[in-house]
Amino acid sequence: MLDRTASRAARFITFEGGEGVGKSTQVKRLLVRLNRGNIEAVRTREPGGTPTAEAVRAFILQGRSEAWGPGAEAVLFAAARLNHVNELVAPNLAHGRWVISDRFHDSTRAYQGLTGGVDEKLIRGLETLALNGHQPDLTFVLDMDPAVAFARVGSRQIEAALAETGDRFEKEDLSWHARLRQAFLDIATTNPDRCVVLPANQNEDALEQEIWDTLVRRYPELGTLPN
Amino acid sequence: MLDRTASRAARFITFEGGEGVGKSTQVKRLLVRLNRGNIEAVRTREPGGTPTAEAVRAFILQGRSEAWGPGAEAVLFAAARLNHVNELVAPNLAHGRWVISDRFHDSTRAYQGLTGGVDEKLIRGLETLALNGHQPDLTFVLDMDPAVAFARVGSRQIEAALAETGDRFEKEDLSWHARLRQAFLDIATTNPDRCVVLPANQNEDALEQEIWDTLVRRYPELGTLPN
Repeated sequence: MLDRTASRAARFITFEGGEGVGKSTQVKRLLVRLNRGNIEAVRTREPGGTPTAEAVRAFILQGRSEAWGPGAEAVLFAAARLNHVNELVAPNLAHGRWVISDRFHDSTRAYQGLTGGVDEKLIRGLETLALNGHQPDLTFVLDMDPAVAFARVGSRQIEAALAETGDRFEKEDLSWHARLRQAFLDIATTNPDRCVVLPANQNEDALEQEIWDTLVRRYPELGTLPN
Repeated sequence: MLDRTASRAARFITFEGGEGVGKSTQVKRLLVRLNRGNIEAVRTREPGGTPTAEAVRAFILQGRSEAWGPGAEAVLFAAARLNHVNELVAPNLAHGRWVISDRFHDSTRAYQGLTGGVDEKLIRGLETLALNGHQPDLTFVLDMDPAVAFARVGSRQIEAALAETGDRFEKEDLSWHARLRQAFLDIATTNPDRCVVLPANQNEDALEQEIWDTLVRRYPELGTLPN
């Protein structure tokens, strides 16, 4: 069994999309499913993933860098990402473990670039710096009308999230979230080989299955795993 | 002997100043001197000090971020510094080891702030982020007329340094280096309790002794060490 695992290439999978579309749930479910098939995998998130990157996350989400503007924040996220790539993503892939990340570089492009107005050349330069050659193999863009996402998540859950992180991005208004949704769709259009857009307004089991089916089509060796 | 070492508080010492004033030489000499006195100490440098921060260093010094402007670079240096503090400075101090750094946060203030025109509020916010509570205990500002520094270092050595790092900051003209010198002096004036300015245009042995005498005056327990 271990030999079979070792013979499969480890993949780097990211989940992207707006607030409340269910990324973390699907990341957890995918991890369980891979582990059930005896595939070693780790779950991580951005911003964050390493102690340094989590400190940057707290600093930004608490609003301490808000006045610096989206350019400075994009740089900060990129530097945190470089640390995340060097210390978590790359070493795990090198050891044959799949890495599943709840958000990655597309979020910088969507939030600070396409929504925040940061120059495309800066965004591209930061990607070169931060990815350090580790482009995700596959990115799921979970897509949902933000009005639906917010109604679904419910105000209680949003308040709990805000209390925990003081997350200022969740405080933006609905039209901003609509622009953010479009930004992720634009990224998917520009990167058709890497990105797969999936409708997130369906029940969690169905979405989990759709994600799995997509993976099996792309990596047929997964088809031999137990369901 | 080990008990005496453990009873001394570990100190965080930084060396600052322009190009070619002899910082790395004095950092190495101080380390030897501390070790001779059975004081555990580590030597580090900025930008750099950890794999992530060294990757940022290479990216910036190769000029890949130059077009982004000094603001973006200040943010990048700060994020690398947070990693350096979290992974090298803080853990070593916690284990009772002195940390001696060739450049630290004052260099961001001098290069990107006072010389590069980056807003004081951004510089201060980045210091809060990056230092994470770990202000240096003592900073030696090695001061020298840049014309003298350049003549002393000699063109061959400068060329060798450029070949190694592609260091674009060394390529600036003499009047820029004069402004940089003044920036470090201004930092020392603003932080009289932490910073000690020492004339660097003297022979290395004499400067080493002056540094050591300053340390013994500040930390009398060092006076009992062998010379």
